[in-house]
Amino acid sequence: MATQMPAPDPEADPRVKAVFDDIRLTRKTDFINNMWRWLAFDPALLERTWREVKEVVGKPSLIDPLTKEMIYIAVSVANNCSYCVHSHTAAARARGMTGEQYGELLAIIGLAGKTNQLATALQIPVDEVFDAAQSGQPGR
Amino acid sequence: MATQMPAPDPEADPRVKAVFDDIRLTRKTDFINNMWRWLAFDPALLERTWREVKEVVGKPSLIDPLTKEMIYIAVSVANNCSYCVHSHTAAARARGMTGEQYGELLAIIGLAGKTNQLATALQIPVDEVFDAAQSGQPGR
Amino acid sequence: MATQMPAPDPEADPRVKAVFDDIRLTRKTDFINNMWRWLAFDPALLERTWREVKEVVGKPSLIDPLTKEMIYIAVSVANNCSYCVHSHTAAARARGMTGEQYGELLAIIGLAGKTNQLATALQIPVDEVFDAAQSGQPGR
Amino acid sequence: MATQMPAPDPEADPRVKAVFDDIRLTRKTDFINNMWRWLAFDPALLERTWREVKEVVGKPSLIDPLTKEMIYIAVSVANNCSYCVHSHTAAARARGMTGEQYGELLAIIGLAGKTNQLATALQIPVDEVFDAAQSGQPGR
Amino acid sequence: MATQMPAPDPEADPRVKAVFDDIRLTRKTDFINNMWRWLAFDPALLERTWREVKEVVGKPSLIDPLTKEMIYIAVSVANNCSYCVHSHTAAARARGMTGEQYGELLAIIGLAGKTNQLATALQIPVDEVFDAAQSGQPGR
Amino acid sequence: MATQMPAPDPEADPRVKAVFDDIRLTRKTDFINNMWRWLAFDPALLERTWREVKEVVGKPSLIDPLTKEMIYIAVSVANNCSYCVHSHTAAARARGMTGEQYGELLAIIGLAGKTNQLATALQIPVDEVFDAAQSGQPGR
Repeated sequence: MATQMPAPDPEADPRVKAVFDDIRLTRKTDFINNMWRWLAFDPALLERTWREVKEVVGKPSLIDPLTKEMIYIAVSVANNCSYCVHSHTAAARARGMTGEQYGELLAIIGLAGKTNQLATALQIPVDEVFDAAQSGQPGR
Repeated sequence: MATQMPAPDPEADPRVKAVFDDIRLTRKTDFINNMWRWLAFDPALLERTWREVKEVVGKPSLIDPLTKEMIYIAVSVANNCSYCVHSHTAAARARGMTGEQYGELLAIIGLAGKTNQLATALQIPVDEVFDAAQSGQPGR
Repeated sequence: MATQMPAPDPEADPRVKAVFDDIRLTRKTDFINNMWRWLAFDPALLERTWREVKEVVGKPSLIDPLTKEMIYIAVSVANNCSYCVHSHTAAARARGMTGEQYGELLAIIGLAGKTNQLATALQIPVDEVFDAAQSGQPGR
Repeated sequence: MATQMPAPDPEADPRVKAVFDDIRLTRKTDFINNMWRWLAFDPALLERTWREVKEVVGKPSLIDPLTKEMIYIAVSVANNCSYCVHSHTAAARARGMTGEQYGELLAIIGLAGKTNQLATALQIPVDEVFDAAQSGQPGR
Repeated sequence: MATQMPAPDPEADPRVKAVFDDIRLTRKTDFINNMWRWLAFDPALLERTWREVKEVVGKPSLIDPLTKEMIYIAVSVANNCSYCVHSHTAAARARGMTGEQYGELLAIIGLAGKTNQLATALQIPVDEVFDAAQSGQPGR
Repeated sequence: MATQMPAPDPEADPRVKAVFDDIRLTRKTDFINNMWRWLAFDPALLERTWREVKEVVGKPSLIDPLTKEMIYIAVSVANNCSYCVHSHTAAARARGMTGEQYGELLAIIGLAGKTNQLATALQIPVDEVFDAAQSGQPGR
C-alpha cells in the first residue's frame, strides 16, 4: 500500500537522475530502494534528504557504521516505522550484525520500552545530578 | 511532579533494601537514582526491573557499554521519556561520550525522525529484499 | 507552562458557565480542574468535549469506573500525556485504587511497553487465528 | 487484517442506517468508507464519532477544507495511523491538493519530525517568551 | 513481513523447547503464537520475556484477567503495535469480552486519544491537587 | 531542565556566529531562541538544521506561512514535543492566528487523535480506493 505511486520513469527528471546516480555511485550498487523512488516525486525533497543521509551516515565519523545502523533501528522501532525497521535491519546485517548482537539490541530496545513507560507512568522527577542546568554540565 | 511520592524510608522493607544494596554494590556508588526510589513502592516490580536491567546492561556482551547507552538515549528520545533521556545521557557521558559523539548521535536521531515520518507519510512499501519472509533470511 | 492562559473570568461567557455548572453538578464538587478551564477559550470545543466525557465516563456501563480510570492511565502513559497521567491517576485513587493494584497496573503497562517494542522490532506477522478477516470472527 | 469484521448487513440496525444515510447525504456519494462500516458494531460510538466529524470537518469555518485535510494528514503521520494517512491523503487530493503542495507538506512534516526529536533529545527549556504563563498571553 | 524468519525447528534448542513446553502447559494448548516463535532466535530474550509474561499475566492478582487484557489492548493501541492489538483483542475475547464491552473500551481509548492531544496542545499545567509532590500523597 | 547547557559564548565559534547572524538577518530580530543556542554545541548540526528550516519555512511556497505553522503545531502535538508546541504556537500567533482559528485547529487535532486510535484499535483495512497501488494514482 502507498499514498501515491512513483512515476514510471522518475529518472526522466534530470534532478532525480543526478541523485539516483549519486546513490548508485556512493553505495556501489545499481539497487535504488523504495525510499528514494517514492521521494522522487518532489526533486527538492529528494535532494535535501539524500544530501543529509549522505552527510550523516556516510562521512568518516566517531561512531562506527554498524553502531549507526543499530541506533537507526532503535529509533525506527520506537517511532514504529515499518519501512524503516525493515531497511535498517537489513543494512545492519549487511554491515555484519550477528544474531547475537541483534538479540542484545532487541533486549535493550525492549527494556527501554518498559522503563520508559514506568518513568512516564510515575512521572518520576529528574535527579538533580542528571540535569545539566543544575549540575553545571559544560556545553561541550 | 509525580503521581506518588516514595515512602520516607523505603529500605525499611527488606526486599527493597536487598535491591538497593545490590544496586550500590553493582554500581560501586551510594547514589540511588529516583527510578529505583519511585519503583520501591511495589517490591516485586522493583526486583523484576532491577534484575532485567542488571542482566541486559551489566553482563559481558557483544555491544560495548557506551553503545548501549547511546541506544537507550535513542529509544528514550523517540519514546519521549524526559526522565530517561536525562538519565541515559548522563550515563553515556559517564562512559566517555564526547561532545562530538553526542552531536553525531543527535544527527542520527534527528535524521531518523525525519525519514521515519516521510516513510510513514508516503506509506512506502517494504522492498522485497528487506523482507525476511520473501528474501529467505535465515532465522539466525 | 502553557501555550495560552485561561481568561480571568471564563464563566462570564454563558456557554462556559453552563458547562462548568454541569461539571460541578455531575461531580458533586466545586473544583473545576485545569483541563476545563483551559478549554473554555473555545466554548464549542468545551461543550463537545465535556458532553463526550460525561457520556463515556459517567453513564451506567459494563465496565466499572475504576477499570475505566485504569484504562485511561494506560492510554495516557503510552501517549505520554503528563497532565492526563496525573489527573487519571488521581481519579483512579479517588475511586479506590490501592497501592497493590497500582503496582500491578504499572507491571502490565511496562510489560506491554516491552513486548510492543519487540513485536515492532521483529515485525512479527499476525497469527491467522488472531485476524478476524481470516478467522471469521463475527461482527458482534 | 482487522480485529473484527463488520456485520454482513450493518444497516439492518436502524441507528446505523440513519448514520450511513446522513453520510451519503452529506458527502453526496453512495460510498461508505471502511471507518464507518467498522464502527457500526457499536451504534452509539458510530453516532458520536460521525456527529463530531460532521461538526468539525463539515461546518463553515475559518480554516479552509484543504488545509484541514493537510492538518489531518500531519497528525495521522505523527500518530502513525496507516488507515488515516491513506484516507486523509485521498481526501486532500479530492479537495485539490497538487503534487507540489503534497511535496511541501511532507517537507514540513519531515522537518518537524527532525526538530521535534532534537528538542526532545536536548530537553531544551521553553523560552520565556513562548510561555503564556510568563508572557501574559491573553486567554483569547 | 518480518525482519527475520524463525528457525525451521526452533525446539531443537533445549532452552527454547523448555519455554515452549511451559507455554503449552501453562496455557493448556498446543498452539504457540508467533511472538514466541519469533523470539526463539535468542533463547535468553525468550526466557526472560516468557518469565515476565507468566508472572505479570498469569499469577493470582487483584486485577481480573479480562481487565488485564483490556489494559493491554489500550497500551497496544496507543503504542500502535499491530501484532499486539490483534493478539490482545483475541485474548480478551477468549476471556469473555462482549461486543458491548469492546465498544465501551474503544470509546474510552478514543476519548483518551482526544483529550491527551488537547492537553498536550495547550500544555495545560497539572493541577496542584493531582501532584503527589505537592498534595502529600503517601508512597503507598 | 536540559541534558547539557549551551556554551557561555557560543558565537566565539565563527561557524555558530555565521548561523546566528543569518537567523537575525532572516528574521529581522536580535532574538535567538533556545533551539539554536542549544544546537550550537555542534556547528555542523546547527548549520544543517538552520539551512533546512530556512529552505522549508522561509522560501516562497504554495502553502501560506500561517498554514505551515499550524501544520507544525499539529505534528508537534502528536509527537508530544513540549518545546515545539510552545514555539510553533507562538509563531502561529505572530503570523496572525486568531483564537477562533486556534480553537478549530485544536478541534481537528483532538478529533484526529480520536479517530486515529479507533482505526488502530480495530485495525481497519485501507479501502482499495485510498490505496495508490490499487487505484492507479499517478506519481505526480
